[in-house]
Amino acid sequence: MIAEIISIGDELLIGQVVNTNASWMGELLNRNGIKVKQIKVIADDKKDILNSIDNSFKSADIILLTGGLGPTKDDITKHTLCEYFDTKLVFNEDAFSRIKEIFRLRNFKVSAVNKAQADLPESCTPLKNINGTASGMWFEKNEKVLVSMPGVPFEMKPMMENEVIPRVKAKFKTPVILHKTIMTQGIGESFLAKKIEDWENSLPQNIKLAYLPQPGIVRLRLSATGENKIKCEQIIAELIEKLKLLIGDLIFGYDNILLEEAVGESLKLHQKTVATAESCTGGYIAHLLTSIAGSSSYFKGSAITYANEIKENILGVSHEDLEKEGAVSETVVKQMAIGAHKKFETDYAIATSGIAGPDGGTEGKPVGTTWIAIAGPDGVLAEKHHFGEHRGRNIRRAALTALFMLKKIVEGKYSPE
Amino acid sequence: MIAEIISIGDELLIGQVVNTNASWMGELLNRNGIKVKQIKVIADDKKDILNSIDNSFKSADIILLTGGLGPTKDDITKHTLCEYFDTKLVFNEDAFSRIKEIFRLRNFKVSAVNKAQADLPESCTPLKNINGTASGMWFEKNEKVLVSMPGVPFEMKPMMENEVIPRVKAKFKTPVILHKTIMTQGIGESFLAKKIEDWENSLPQNIKLAYLPQPGIVRLRLSATGENKIKCEQIIAELIEKLKLLIGDLIFGYDNILLEEAVGESLKLHQKTVATAESCTGGYIAHLLTSIAGSSSYFKGSAITYANEIKENILGVSHEDLEKEGAVSETVVKQMAIGAHKKFETDYAIATSGIAGPDGGTEGKPVGTTWIAIAGPDGVLAEKHHFGEHRGRNIRRAALTALFMLKKIVEGKYSPE
Repeated sequence: MIAEIISIGDELLIGQVVNTNASWMGELLNRNGIKVKQIKVIADDKKDILNSIDNSFKSADIILLTGGLGPTKDDITKHTLCEYFDTKLVFNEDAFSRIKEIFRLRNFKVSAVNKAQADLPESCTPLKNINGTASGMWFEKNEKVLVSMPGVPFEMKPMMENEVIPRVKAKFKTPVILHKTIMTQGIGESFLAKKIEDWENSLPQNIKLAYLPQPGIVRLRLSATGENKIKCEQIIAELIEKLKLLIGDLIFGYDNILLEEAVGESLKLHQKTVATAESCTGGYIAHLLTSIAGSSSYFKGSAITYANEIKENILGVSHEDLEKEGAVSETVVKQMAIGAHKKFETDYAIATSGIAGPDGGTEGKPVGTTWIAIAGPDGVLAEKHHFGEHRGRNIRRAALTALFMLKKIVEGKYSPE
Repeated sequence: MIAEIISIGDELLIGQVVNTNASWMGELLNRNGIKVKQIKVIADDKKDILNSIDNSFKSADIILLTGGLGPTKDDITKHTLCEYFDTKLVFNEDAFSRIKEIFRLRNFKVSAVNKAQADLPESCTPLKNINGTASGMWFEKNEKVLVSMPGVPFEMKPMMENEVIPRVKAKFKTPVILHKTIMTQGIGESFLAKKIEDWENSLPQNIKLAYLPQPGIVRLRLSATGENKIKCEQIIAELIEKLKLLIGDLIFGYDNILLEEAVGESLKLHQKTVATAESCTGGYIAHLLTSIAGSSSYFKGSAITYANEIKENILGVSHEDLEKEGAVSETVVKQMAIGAHKKFETDYAIATSGIAGPDGGTEGKPVGTTWIAIAGPDGVLAEKHHFGEHRGRNIRRAALTALFMLKKIVEGKYSPE
């Protein structure tokens, strides 16, 4: 059961619109055991549409076409499909009733171009569009299927869920595919691969592993294919248990949870509060924490102390230590954490001080050098890290590292390296 | 000059990652006079890669391939390209030096899988990756070009800009297309369109206008096509002068400058400093300001005062006023700005207090209600805004509105509405 997606639209080719439709459809199809072999974006052009369909049917059982069904005259999809399936447009009374109803609700008069949207290819099964005037179309030919849908996500999505997926499942036999994503932070893709090499090599044939890196994070996705859902779930659960023995300290959650969300859940669960004292991260940790709805229950505030006098003034960092050790030092970052812990009266306080770059590096403290400290009921812990040369990446990696460190401390799992 | 983009990656087909690379590349290519005829997403599969290349070369002069170059073993692109171009992998000393340098900076040892990234097809021209270990590859065959790049946007983007586009322009003839992007903040796309309707309708035939909305920002891109570069520049300059008469107060800069960057330039030019006191924006303004290199010359620090007691404790907000007016009020936001102005001893201080949502709204103060104040040498100004219902959007719009307000005040252009 192989599917291909064809998105029609010049706006996608010139980068004016990102093709979120295709990824949404890919996710839905995959979740339903339908493998997407290819996604294509093509222009609003008859020859291109015909060529693409021909090509896709060489390997696909079903083609999902989106776009090119609007009421304006540059849309040629419908006529092209009539040509491909050797049929003609006929007026569809049901479709016209729905168009009239939509216009009545919006208090508009039905124009001629909108009435023309009720002209549909004779050989197709029309698919109901609950959010718009363009009907979808289901064609069958030689045991294969082509579905044409509008490109507006708000119209396409319910059509996929309510009309397309049930019809596909009724017509084709679909296997069980289960996915589990493991979220890791701390080391890059290649180091992670090295650590789990033996585990990866011993994966059963029906299990696939994918590395999905994001800035500062690597996601590991396990996909199990089989006949039996419960058995697939069991295999994945066992594999994750084995994986935890290897990289348990790098896993912060599952299934695309954000690290800032996982930290928030941990703080809520343990009923703890947090504040931050940020130098090099410049408020980014506070921003991540507060981007989560409900964070006011555990996040109290931050002191962003970019200038040294502010570190002294708000956090009580010693002037002498700043002079002697420099702002990027264990002494200062610990004093920042302790100062914030006291000032904000929270259970924990995170502090960061580093050289984000691109300037400000020295031989002893090159760009990327970062100190992170966390003060809590049991005292203060500090770590020194060397990130890269890129300012934005350094800020992000420092923030993620600090958040993960906090999560481990809150959960009593922290062991300084 | 026709291009096709092929994105390789199972994660794109199953919808785990949205293909933003392809739209970014489409935009860049289009801007450089290169037409993108098709975008394809295919699996990490040798046969699919070979088929796609064969097919794309039927109509394209250049194929841009992304993905499939990571150090982990599920990547097969390099071997497939060797087969297609009938060449073999050879160890590349330059590429290895860059890999070693990246690892040295991160204080890591080069592993065997990373060393293998220096093995490159003999017949290609390697393209420098300034942000990662996978080199790009430029192949030529029968006057056609294939470029293979890593799929990580952070690595692919500079490679496209610095390596690919200049090489394409040197090899192929591309028409003169001039672009000028006008950056606006403050109103949405449809309202903007209404304001500049007459101006838009009077644009000459060789000028195209595109609306490029981003969260909180609308970019207007003018594209002039012609034979004569100087004439194109003149026409665009004249059009912008006319546009300024209509929406001058909404323009914060040109050519994709970030608002936080424009604000930084203004502060530097006028030799002013700034601090922030953030409640609803939770550190996001500080983060935007400090994401700009060199911001330490004008940004001193912030107090993120999520909890009310912190507003009192650090910023000196009156307990009575907090009780009486609530945190989201003109009185409190002004006190926050004045408090930060004093505490951080800066020329200006921005304060925000609002209901970011999704919870916390009331009938009188629904989600999205946001107060912004700026304290400076001439006193304190405050504005009330109603943003939307989405937390992330509210935080972003509040931050952008505050930054633009600061820019106007610093430049003496502020007139409260």
